[in-house]
Amino acid sequence: MKMDVLAVGTVAFDSIETPFGSVEKVLGGSAMYITLAARHLTPEVCLVAAVGGDFPDSYVETMESFGIDLSGLEIQEDAHTFAWGGRYHDDLNERDTLFTDLNVLETFNPQIPSSYRKSRIVCLGNLDPSIQMGVLDQMENPEFVILDTMNYWINKTPDILREVLGRIDCLTINDSEARDLTGESNLFRAAHLIREMGPDVLIIKKGEHGAYLFMEETIFILPAFPLENILDPTGAGDAFMGGFAGFLAQNESISLDVLKQAVVRGSAVASFTVEDFGPKRLLSLSPDEIKNRVHAFHELTSIPESKIQNL
Amino acid sequence: MKMDVLAVGTVAFDSIETPFGSVEKVLGGSAMYITLAARHLTPEVCLVAAVGGDFPDSYVETMESFGIDLSGLEIQEDAHTFAWGGRYHDDLNERDTLFTDLNVLETFNPQIPSSYRKSRIVCLGNLDPSIQMGVLDQMENPEFVILDTMNYWINKTPDILREVLGRIDCLTINDSEARDLTGESNLFRAAHLIREMGPDVLIIKKGEHGAYLFMEETIFILPAFPLENILDPTGAGDAFMGGFAGFLAQNESISLDVLKQAVVRGSAVASFTVEDFGPKRLLSLSPDEIKNRVHAFHELTSIPESKIQNL
Repeated sequence: MKMDVLAVGTVAFDSIETPFGSVEKVLGGSAMYITLAARHLTPEVCLVAAVGGDFPDSYVETMESFGIDLSGLEIQEDAHTFAWGGRYHDDLNERDTLFTDLNVLETFNPQIPSSYRKSRIVCLGNLDPSIQMGVLDQMENPEFVILDTMNYWINKTPDILREVLGRIDCLTINDSEARDLTGESNLFRAAHLIREMGPDVLIIKKGEHGAYLFMEETIFILPAFPLENILDPTGAGDAFMGGFAGFLAQNESISLDVLKQAVVRGSAVASFTVEDFGPKRLLSLSPDEIKNRVHAFHELTSIPESKIQNL
Repeated sequence: MKMDVLAVGTVAFDSIETPFGSVEKVLGGSAMYITLAARHLTPEVCLVAAVGGDFPDSYVETMESFGIDLSGLEIQEDAHTFAWGGRYHDDLNERDTLFTDLNVLETFNPQIPSSYRKSRIVCLGNLDPSIQMGVLDQMENPEFVILDTMNYWINKTPDILREVLGRIDCLTINDSEARDLTGESNLFRAAHLIREMGPDVLIIKKGEHGAYLFMEETIFILPAFPLENILDPTGAGDAFMGGFAGFLAQNESISLDVLKQAVVRGSAVASFTVEDFGPKRLLSLSPDEIKNRVHAFHELTSIPESKIQNL
């Protein structure tokens, strides 16, 4: 059997402070957010990540009972789990990293279980591009490969990152990363340059300002969902990727229309994610809530046709 | 005969520096941008503003030959025209004001010609709120009054600004002004507070990130048009207001659907405005270009319906 969505990334302890509260050592990491989000849209979801011997059984159970296949979760008994701490400013777009304890990540070399190698959609969470490359080498003709990265790799390992970009279908990055990657401040010109590096599909995430999808000559722009209460932005980008990938997996083929629809689902799931701390809201989310939010996106953005001729 | 759109504001000399060039003493001012933009969408457009004896005949001819009714343009022979100078940063969202010579504006007390008093749509460009109030006192049952303001008045004359807000139909401000006006950093909560101050309709302009329209329980979000080359952002907000007002004037009644369509026309005209310095692009714009850009907005934002049930 083929898995629908494979996520390779981190499973972590997150300690988060925002103006609205704080949590310590909650379940975090890109692979966790991606798979939880994807699982809301498609059934067969798996991950490859590593944790230490200190990783609580209860966290494993949380993900397993949610229907995530965890046979790819490597538990290194004598290591500690990757831990990240961050503090968000009043402007939630700004955050300081308080600590990054790589721990088990220092030697992480993902082995893709044979049962995962034919996964249809592959999500490469933010990791060292050489590790992302190693994953691609193990995959067997994935239909669609989506990659995330960050400024750190753009500046530190530009050559290997470029090489990976030549092997993927879709890059998802935020606006400042797109500018860093290209040295071009205009996002639309940056988008041309990035697609010349390889990916047919590019998604530029602008947080509260929405997301751009670029494919062929088409640009599709979706605003972020209007939220009056954002408690914790952590994981929004990964949840976007998971919702996006999960929707793609439900479609027989990946057309431009399907990609646009997937951006809406990714944005919907991401918009719920930030409504509570850590993965809390993702864990309580219902299919009807997602459906209603997708409908709300149509209402928010739909331009009525004018009855006035030529105007 | 009723005028379609009346704009009260400034006609000015603008001196502009951007990373892409500079111009000196070009035709500028809110009333100029509003009327030029409105004139692209509706025929009967007039303005009330004051200039000095130094205002060139050629600038008057430029506006008159464009079809703007200038009987409300007061020429004070012994005064100088209002002059503004600004320098934009590499990030065009940032600018420094180099000088503001109020000149004729220091004693500007707009008298609305009797032929303008029944104008259907009134655009109050950014001015001292007490002057805006004086204009409203002279109008005879306008159908729809749109007001612009800025941080200076929000902080300096909050009481009189509040009073004006109670008498208008629509406020257009940018996101930082909305936050200043309410002390609320979340734009959607700020929008509630602003509408409690009076205006039934609120438009929050976010520059390159698009615009929000608030009316009743509805939010409509339109992205900015993707532009690879922005030469000069001056006048974009005023051109938005003019295009918005001009489209409203072409409709028999102003419904929510018509307001959404008007936001698209305002954004389309504004997007052309920034493609060249001063009003240059506005003066060369054709009806087909506007029509095509409106169509392009539909393409950019339209979400295809999914074929997958319940997803």
